[in-house]
Amino acid sequence: MNSLIDSLRAVVGAGHVLTDAADVAPFVTDWRGRYSGSALAIVSPGGTPEVAEVVRLCAGAGVAIVPQGGNTGLCGGATPTRGEVVVRMARLNRVRAIDVANNTITVEAGCTLAAVQETARATDRLFPLSLAAEGTATIGGNLSTNAGGVQVLRYGNARELCLGLEVVLPDGRVWNGLRGLRKDNTGYDLKHLFIGAEGTLGLITAAVLKMYARPRQVATAWATVPSPAAAVALLTRLRGRIGGRITAFELVGRPPLELVLKNIPHSRDPLPGNSPWQVLIELSDTMESELDAALQDVLIEAVHAGEAGDAALARSGAQAQAFWQLRENISEAQKIEGVSIKHDISLPVSRIPEFIERCDAALASAFPGVRVVCFGHLGDGNLHYNQSKPQAQDNAGFIAQTASVNRVVHDLVAELGGSISAEHGLGQLKRDEILRYKSDVEMDMMRAVKRPSIRRVS
Amino acid sequence: MNSLIDSLRAVVGAGHVLTDAADVAPFVTDWRGRYSGSALAIVSPGGTPEVAEVVRLCAGAGVAIVPQGGNTGLCGGATPTRGEVVVRMARLNRVRAIDVANNTITVEAGCTLAAVQETARATDRLFPLSLAAEGTATIGGNLSTNAGGVQVLRYGNARELCLGLEVVLPDGRVWNGLRGLRKDNTGYDLKHLFIGAEGTLGLITAAVLKMYARPRQVATAWATVPSPAAAVALLTRLRGRIGGRITAFELVGRPPLELVLKNIPHSRDPLPGNSPWQVLIELSDTMESELDAALQDVLIEAVHAGEAGDAALARSGAQAQAFWQLRENISEAQKIEGVSIKHDISLPVSRIPEFIERCDAALASAFPGVRVVCFGHLGDGNLHYNQSKPQAQDNAGFIAQTASVNRVVHDLVAELGGSISAEHGLGQLKRDEILRYKSDVEMDMMRAVKRPSIRRVS
Repeated sequence: MNSLIDSLRAVVGAGHVLTDAADVAPFVTDWRGRYSGSALAIVSPGGTPEVAEVVRLCAGAGVAIVPQGGNTGLCGGATPTRGEVVVRMARLNRVRAIDVANNTITVEAGCTLAAVQETARATDRLFPLSLAAEGTATIGGNLSTNAGGVQVLRYGNARELCLGLEVVLPDGRVWNGLRGLRKDNTGYDLKHLFIGAEGTLGLITAAVLKMYARPRQVATAWATVPSPAAAVALLTRLRGRIGGRITAFELVGRPPLELVLKNIPHSRDPLPGNSPWQVLIELSDTMESELDAALQDVLIEAVHAGEAGDAALARSGAQAQAFWQLRENISEAQKIEGVSIKHDISLPVSRIPEFIERCDAALASAFPGVRVVCFGHLGDGNLHYNQSKPQAQDNAGFIAQTASVNRVVHDLVAELGGSISAEHGLGQLKRDEILRYKSDVEMDMMRAVKRPSIRRVS
Repeated sequence: MNSLIDSLRAVVGAGHVLTDAADVAPFVTDWRGRYSGSALAIVSPGGTPEVAEVVRLCAGAGVAIVPQGGNTGLCGGATPTRGEVVVRMARLNRVRAIDVANNTITVEAGCTLAAVQETARATDRLFPLSLAAEGTATIGGNLSTNAGGVQVLRYGNARELCLGLEVVLPDGRVWNGLRGLRKDNTGYDLKHLFIGAEGTLGLITAAVLKMYARPRQVATAWATVPSPAAAVALLTRLRGRIGGRITAFELVGRPPLELVLKNIPHSRDPLPGNSPWQVLIELSDTMESELDAALQDVLIEAVHAGEAGDAALARSGAQAQAFWQLRENISEAQKIEGVSIKHDISLPVSRIPEFIERCDAALASAFPGVRVVCFGHLGDGNLHYNQSKPQAQDNAGFIAQTASVNRVVHDLVAELGGSISAEHGLGQLKRDEILRYKSDVEMDMMRAVKRPSIRRVS
């Protein structure tokens, strides 16, 4: 293996191949600290040709590769297991092209999501992908995991924001699919194979991304709703009336709201009254329009229809931000209480009420005293559905039952036509779990796609 | 082969297997009349299990299959060549599910596009795919060719409107990928392989489709522009100001407009003055908003900036329709003049002006006296770029030079990063032509995807 490391050094420069334990450490553990592995080396190529040469060298030596962007993934997909070469994309961070008339930018995989957003903003355009880790997460990782985030309802996932890719294939060849076309029907759409494949089919080195008009106006509301079914009815009403202006429709249960009110300083319930459920609604518009008035009209209708109990429209940017912080601080507030079993699941929006009712009941029956923290992107059918014990000291024992909890949750997700990974991907966390829920046909199809590129590691 | 036909009859019923020359005739020629072949039989299964059984039987007998929807394709992709079994999807025409809260419908492949649109409309929602053949074309064919049409700028191609598929694979197994999820990151996104694959990887039998809020307001304008570059500048201005409300932005050259004015009764130029170029702009909105005023403001700015010469805002639905008919009658008006060499190409929007200037010049030099009819969906970077001789009697000789004309047009498309098939697909028409423009790497990748399913026909 020393000869491989020497060869890698010759390609990318000695300073860009890390092998000392202390240097390697930050890149062999995921940021949640759940997965830790070992790596033969951490290699940081300086451009696509160097990535290609690194892949060729590793393939020749029979050493597996783990590509890594900002190392912010939640499922251990960027963490090595035992002696792989970690290929860091951080040095591929150039903006290759900005094409305002085509509404596209071409960026390298190692650009942070924040840098991509900023590049679009500098041309008075929007790149709408947005998520908590955006200052560190890279666009290559976002595409490889088909990242979601807070604006999917309006703009789609990372997949929908990408027009073209450049990819280094497992044999070291480079596929130049960097097309900036809205229409192209000349064969199989290969970019969609690599998006969401978590690096298993090749290494994304660059992408052509869509830009959008920047919103000039935003309306934000916080409303109480009597039930998830009422929240879905309110969403349906909003969709019919407001259509494409809905940027976010977030559901927040009472337990997560209580955690935020308890653990995050200066938090305040906009609508005290202990409602079991609340929603956060955001509309946005490129043109000046009567957004606040339209949102208020729909909310008044919803109150009359019993879909909402009460509602507060943000009267300032600060108030809107306060609403959003109640939503965005849930993970932090939960962490303060100790560990929990987390699920990132999706369902048809119409099945969400049934799922919550039945799964809450099944968990309460199987795990008496369990606390369910349920919130998420209702507009996308995406719930974060987490379990813990009310007393932190009980959680070590509870966490040991993760497999049993997963079985209850995932079995019901599958029964209702949902997905056990909505926006975080599979990684190491759910690699085996999907074998239980994918049909044999679908697994065969995935293996058939993967097979031509499989390299056996000796 | 008689035993295969007997077996097919046993599966789908004798009345649904056609073999007599007269019965077979409508299904072995494409509707443009450019391609004609022979078929062993025309088989119309009554549901997915029958499709699966038909595929198994044909695979067992080593007979190739050509799936066919409404037989409205423009590239001969649904036309048999020599003795295949044509599998007609017309009897798979049920709406399987309507889920308003999830904003989805699940339909079988043989539903006409018009029937799908109507199903959405009946729930006060919009299915936005729209194209000239929608009364006959089927949604299975639309997905298999990733159809475009007149609203791609706002809603995307058929690909972007689909959440899940059911597919019969080449070995007769059924893949149930009918998921109605906005987020699902559990492995490779296999549906994108079948969309746009023109039936080469499997037979799409059903799909889950997205619905959208119905627009309640439309604004339409016709404007003259001095050049394609000015049209692109006007589009960029509109995008920044109006954003997602732009439903269509169509470019029309003087020659196609003249053909319509000459050949289509009651046609009238809204802005006489012999402008070399004009654009048709449509905005739409779910909510009441000041669409007309906003469009007028941008057009006034554009006139001051020299991007537009003059503009007319439609003051009634009838006037809007008259503008649209000038655009939609171009193909008909052209047909009246005789045959022409047609190109369905796409480019980055920013490269369209250079393409038109350079390609017009190259064609004029290589084919003196050629008439270029250039129009299309400028907002999508999609041009219909057609050539003929001004005198109909010269066209037989000119058509014989199609390969040379293609070379000029397609070479420049490739040089400028475009696609030689934007929205019509490859079919028989461009199956060989792409070999010239796809990289070896990309052809290898496509073959690797296709290979597991290849059946050698004896």
